[in-house]
Amino acid sequence: MAAAGGIGEFELIARVFAPLAADGALGLTDDAAFYRPRPGRDLVLTKDEVVSGVHFFADDPWDAVARKALRVNLSDLAAKGATPVGYLLALGLPKDFSVDQIDALGAGLAADQAAYGLSLYGGDTVRSPAGLTLSVTAIGEVKQGGMVRRGGARAGDTIVVTGTIGDAALGLALRLDPALSGRLGLPDVHRDHLLDRYLLPRPRGALATAVADCASGGMDISDGLVGDLGKMAAASGVAIDIDADRVPLSDAAQAAVAAEPRLLAVALTGGDDYELALSIPEAKVAAFLAAAAAAGIGAVPIGRARAGEGIAVRGNHPALADLGSGSYRHF
Amino acid sequence: MAAAGGIGEFELIARVFAPLAADGALGLTDDAAFYRPRPGRDLVLTKDEVVSGVHFFADDPWDAVARKALRVNLSDLAAKGATPVGYLLALGLPKDFSVDQIDALGAGLAADQAAYGLSLYGGDTVRSPAGLTLSVTAIGEVKQGGMVRRGGARAGDTIVVTGTIGDAALGLALRLDPALSGRLGLPDVHRDHLLDRYLLPRPRGALATAVADCASGGMDISDGLVGDLGKMAAASGVAIDIDADRVPLSDAAQAAVAAEPRLLAVALTGGDDYELALSIPEAKVAAFLAAAAAAGIGAVPIGRARAGEGIAVRGNHPALADLGSGSYRHF
Repeated sequence: MAAAGGIGEFELIARVFAPLAADGALGLTDDAAFYRPRPGRDLVLTKDEVVSGVHFFADDPWDAVARKALRVNLSDLAAKGATPVGYLLALGLPKDFSVDQIDALGAGLAADQAAYGLSLYGGDTVRSPAGLTLSVTAIGEVKQGGMVRRGGARAGDTIVVTGTIGDAALGLALRLDPALSGRLGLPDVHRDHLLDRYLLPRPRGALATAVADCASGGMDISDGLVGDLGKMAAASGVAIDIDADRVPLSDAAQAAVAAEPRLLAVALTGGDDYELALSIPEAKVAAFLAAAAAAGIGAVPIGRARAGEGIAVRGNHPALADLGSGSYRHF
Repeated sequence: MAAAGGIGEFELIARVFAPLAADGALGLTDDAAFYRPRPGRDLVLTKDEVVSGVHFFADDPWDAVARKALRVNLSDLAAKGATPVGYLLALGLPKDFSVDQIDALGAGLAADQAAYGLSLYGGDTVRSPAGLTLSVTAIGEVKQGGMVRRGGARAGDTIVVTGTIGDAALGLALRLDPALSGRLGLPDVHRDHLLDRYLLPRPRGALATAVADCASGGMDISDGLVGDLGKMAAASGVAIDIDADRVPLSDAAQAAVAAEPRLLAVALTGGDDYELALSIPEAKVAAFLAAAAAAGIGAVPIGRARAGEGIAVRGNHPALADLGSGSYRHF
């Protein structure tokens, strides 16, 4: 059968994917790969798929799409305190892709494999009638019993978030409404920062060990800070109070919110942050913040877990009235 | 956001997927699952995706589609001599699915989890603009160093296949051309057998231990017997000769070929058999055949590996001239 894009399945594997393969993947010439677990470790397994027109735009460059697909999974591993081992990729290809696009996809994966320390354990390539899809299964490892759970927060813990919140949601808003940046009077550097944070998450894998050592509970913020902390509170059987004024916003997000106050609600409830939300016992907060500082990653206490239930956002900002318990839902 | 099919993402997880979850998947309420490998074992990892309109028909029942998605992966594990542990599933849902369909999907997965002894370690649910997709990552285990490889065939080994060959390819031909069955004069029982074998593979997981104990090389036949044995020959650095008269055909396939001789080429080169193709050293052939008989699964020697390269199909049937080295290509 004639191959799409002028490149056949076996050529595609040999050209793009075999160079990314782990030793146990046998050059991707077998039906499966093997992996020998290290003694004393648990594996951590996670799976996230990205779909053209749903999780990214059809005209996003394929290197960025590939990196996003990998990074949303790496973000889950980081939140669990897990060090990446490898991944498998099911790639759904549209009919009309180009060799340049597939080469870009491979280059994006190669760059992130090197940056995050993992390799490819196999996958599948299928025809995708509606456009590019990438379904990634990521595998990490923790010490036995060491996976940090969403439901691990305890009353009295400090709630810490990494990086900055809301950039990706604001970037998506700018992407959907190209005139918005002008209406907000955003300088190009701020606009570009927000767009880039939507395009390319920054998973906090450099903090995985510190998460495992310090956090009692953790998750990554993928569906919006407020909604996700609500899930953590529910899973942990605690209430979580956060102070809106302490939520870290980038300069770009601050400029957007200053121009249009309702955007604070977008920042606090919008998806795609891929930052960490952690619950840390008081005695370990300083150690975690020091580890984050050493890694060059921002980390800020924004609230506290207490006996009770639900998520409360404290602050006087007028946009807070709009919050509800909104969280991005997947369909 | 309003959910498709009158069922929201969290309800979907709670209703359909949480009952399928492994202990380490924490009721699918976390970002990831953990798995504690057994000492002395390697994990075997494989990933196959099925797409509506490509790997199954849009009007196939969802319980069968779900089972097919799982089974094509279980077939890979069986061919590697691996015992199933668990799987992850990325489910792409069209806009207009019904609760009955999603319940059927869950029931199909539940039935096969019980039949094949594995459970769900997580996944993702996304919107799929072009129709249902299921991307499965399956995890199995073998003794350390014990994964049976495609490239393990050695000169002198006997080539053994399980079950019957070509039923699924003939079933697909019947599905694509509803008048074909009548033209061939096939009784309903034969037509139904072939259609069913296309709809629902029979992975040979019951033979995984025998494969691990006896086979020097192995793969599952997913892209056609001749083409797949050609891949085994190439990966192993041997030639493989098979005798077309010894390839096991079901009564239904024999009837189809008797009516239309060219269909033998379809049977020998068509995809979706999901039977095992094994290379077994002479001294272990009897033990493997005995294990297959004990499991109630057909297993037949059809040829031999020898020094050289390539795949040769011996026999006098006129359709053999059409074979070429055809093998289904994925796009």
